[in-house]
Amino acid sequence: MGYELNEKIRDLKPYDPISGDFPVRLDANESFIQVPQKILQKISDAVLSIPYNRYPDPLAKELCESFGNYYHLNSGLVTAGNGSDELISVICSAFLMKGDTMLTMSPDFSMYRFYASIAEAKAELYYKKPDMTIDVDKLIAMANSSNAKLVIFSNPCNPTSLGLKREDVRRLVTSVNALVVLDEAYMDFWDESLLDEVVSYDNLIILRTCSKAFAMAGIRLGFAVANRELTNAMKAVKSPYNVNTLTQKAGFVILQEGQWLRSCIEEVKASRDMLYERMSILESNYAQRMHVYPSVTNFLFVKISQADDVYYQLVKSGIAVRYFGDFLRITAGTKEENEKFLLAFEKAIRL
Amino acid sequence: MGYELNEKIRDLKPYDPISGDFPVRLDANESFIQVPQKILQKISDAVLSIPYNRYPDPLAKELCESFGNYYHLNSGLVTAGNGSDELISVICSAFLMKGDTMLTMSPDFSMYRFYASIAEAKAELYYKKPDMTIDVDKLIAMANSSNAKLVIFSNPCNPTSLGLKREDVRRLVTSVNALVVLDEAYMDFWDESLLDEVVSYDNLIILRTCSKAFAMAGIRLGFAVANRELTNAMKAVKSPYNVNTLTQKAGFVILQEGQWLRSCIEEVKASRDMLYERMSILESNYAQRMHVYPSVTNFLFVKISQADDVYYQLVKSGIAVRYFGDFLRITAGTKEENEKFLLAFEKAIRL
Repeated sequence: MGYELNEKIRDLKPYDPISGDFPVRLDANESFIQVPQKILQKISDAVLSIPYNRYPDPLAKELCESFGNYYHLNSGLVTAGNGSDELISVICSAFLMKGDTMLTMSPDFSMYRFYASIAEAKAELYYKKPDMTIDVDKLIAMANSSNAKLVIFSNPCNPTSLGLKREDVRRLVTSVNALVVLDEAYMDFWDESLLDEVVSYDNLIILRTCSKAFAMAGIRLGFAVANRELTNAMKAVKSPYNVNTLTQKAGFVILQEGQWLRSCIEEVKASRDMLYERMSILESNYAQRMHVYPSVTNFLFVKISQADDVYYQLVKSGIAVRYFGDFLRITAGTKEENEKFLLAFEKAIRL
Repeated sequence: MGYELNEKIRDLKPYDPISGDFPVRLDANESFIQVPQKILQKISDAVLSIPYNRYPDPLAKELCESFGNYYHLNSGLVTAGNGSDELISVICSAFLMKGDTMLTMSPDFSMYRFYASIAEAKAELYYKKPDMTIDVDKLIAMANSSNAKLVIFSNPCNPTSLGLKREDVRRLVTSVNALVVLDEAYMDFWDESLLDEVVSYDNLIILRTCSKAFAMAGIRLGFAVANRELTNAMKAVKSPYNVNTLTQKAGFVILQEGQWLRSCIEEVKASRDMLYERMSILESNYAQRMHVYPSVTNFLFVKISQADDVYYQLVKSGIAVRYFGDFLRITAGTKEENEKFLLAFEKAIRL
C-alpha cells in the first residue's frame, strides 16, 4: 500500500523564518520593546496559581473582559485565538465553502491566501495601484462581480504600511454581500479603527493582536470582534479549548497595563518617525534608486532597485529585514538598531 | 446587503461544557493530580526570561527534543500543536480534499467528525460491537470499500475505555490506502503504543497529549509523530508560530520531569483500578441495571439503564460526569472524589 499526499499539500515547504545570527532583527514587525521586569513578575506570579491539570476556560471570559475593557467594547463580542493566525484559519475553513471565492489584495499578508488554499477556496486578487493605494470602488466592484463570500485584508496594510480611512472601509463593508474580515493588527499605531462600530454590521469581523503594539508576539494572542451572530459562529467553530490557561493569564496581565501599552505605542511611533525621516533624506539623495512609502504602522515599506543586492548587504552586516521582490520591509527598532540599519543601508544603496 | 452564514456553520452552537458549581469534576478525563509546587516554581521561573516581544520558535525545537527524549524518539519527527485538537483540525483540513471520505468509529471522540464536517469531508462510521470491541477486518474492509483517505480513531478509545492491541493496529495500518491517525491520548495508561515503529509506515500519524497522564490540560499541548514526509507536511500546513513561547517553556519543564510523570501514571491507574473494582461489585448487585467496561485509560465507561436519571442524581449531588445516551463516562478522581461518586452513584442506581 502506498500513501500519497494530496495536491494541496504535496509541494508545501515548512515555514522557514530567517534564521542565523542576526544581531539586529527588523524582519518580523515585532515590537523592539521588552516587557519590563515588573510586568514579567506579574505574569510569573499569575502562572503559579494555574490549575494545570484542568482544561482552560473555553470562552476565555476573564481575558476577553480585559480586552473589552481596554478598547471599551462589550466583551461578549470578543473571541480569543492563538494569534490572529488561528482566527484567520478558522474563518477561511468554516466561513467559506469549497469553491467559494475569497477576495484579498496584492500586496497584502500572504497567509490569507495560504489558508484559503487549504480550504480549497478560489482566491481573487485585487492588485494595488503603483503608489500602493486602493481604489475602493474597483475593490467593491470586484467583490461583487466575483461573487466573493469573503473579503479579507489588513488595515493598515502589511506590508505596504499604508492605511485605508474609516469611511472607505465603511463603504466597502456596506457595499458587498461578502463577509469582510478587517485585520487591524497594526491599527494601534493609527486611528481609523472600526472597532467602535463593528456591532452595527452583520458582515464584519475585526481582528486584533497582542503581537505588534503590545510587544507580546511570544504569547500568540489574537482577538476577533464582531456582532453577536458572527461571534457565536466563531466560538462554535473554533477548537473548544483553543487558548490555554497560561496564555489567558499572561494576556490578562498585559491588558491591565493600559498605561504601559499606550507608552509602548508612542515609543514605537517615535522610532518609526525617526526612521522615516532619515530614510526620506536618503530618498532625496538617491531618488532614482529608492522610494519610501509613508507609514501608519511600526515598519517602513521601501521600493528599491536591485533590492536583492541591498538585502544581501544588510544580511552580511547582521541585519535582518523582510525582502519582497522589488521591496524591503523594515521594522522600526531601537535607536541603536535603526542607526545600525541606516548605516548599512546607506552603504548598500551607494554601491 | 445581508450576509448569511453558510450551511456548515449556520446551526452550530458554541461549545458549552458542564458549568456550575461542581465540587467533584469527573467529566473531562483530566488528571486529578495537581502539579507540585516545585515544578510550578520551575515554570514560573522559566516564563520570567521569555523574550515576549519576539515570535516563538516556529518549530518548537527545544520542546520537541524534550518530548523525543521522554519517549526515546527522533525529535525531528515530532510536531507540536495547541492540544491534539489543533493537530486533528490541521489534518482534517489539509490532508483531506473536500468530498474525501474519512472513516472513524462510533462511539469515539466526537471532534473527529466535527473537524471533518468543517473540511466538507464525508464521514463514514464504523459502529462498534455491543461489547464495544472492534472487528478489525470489517474496519479494514470498510476503509477500502469506501475509499477512505483518512482513518482516525482513539486508542485506547475515548469514551469506551477499551484498547486495540498493537498487532491489530499494525494490520489496519498496513492494509489500507488511507492515512491512519492514531490518537494515543490515553496510551500512557496502557502499553500498546506504535510510537516506536511509527517511522516504518508511510501512512501513520500518532497523536499524543500532555492533557491526560501528564496532568497538564491547562497548557493544551499535543504532539504528532510520523515519518519524515508526513512530518514535513504537518509542519508546512500548521500555522507558522502555532505554539507560543509560554507553552513551549512549560511543556519543556514538565517533560523533564520523567520520574514525576511516571508516578502520576501509576497513581491514576491505581485510582482507576479502585474505581473499577468498586463499580464491579455494584454491577454484581445491580447486574440488570449496569455494566462496567474494563478500562485501560483513566476513566470508566458504564452502560446504565435510565442513565439520564442517574446522571441527574449525580448532578444534584454536585458530581459532574459525562453523559452519553445509555452510558456514563466517569474519570478516575482522588480517593475522596471516588468515594463521593460511589456513594452518590449507588444511591442513584438503587432508586
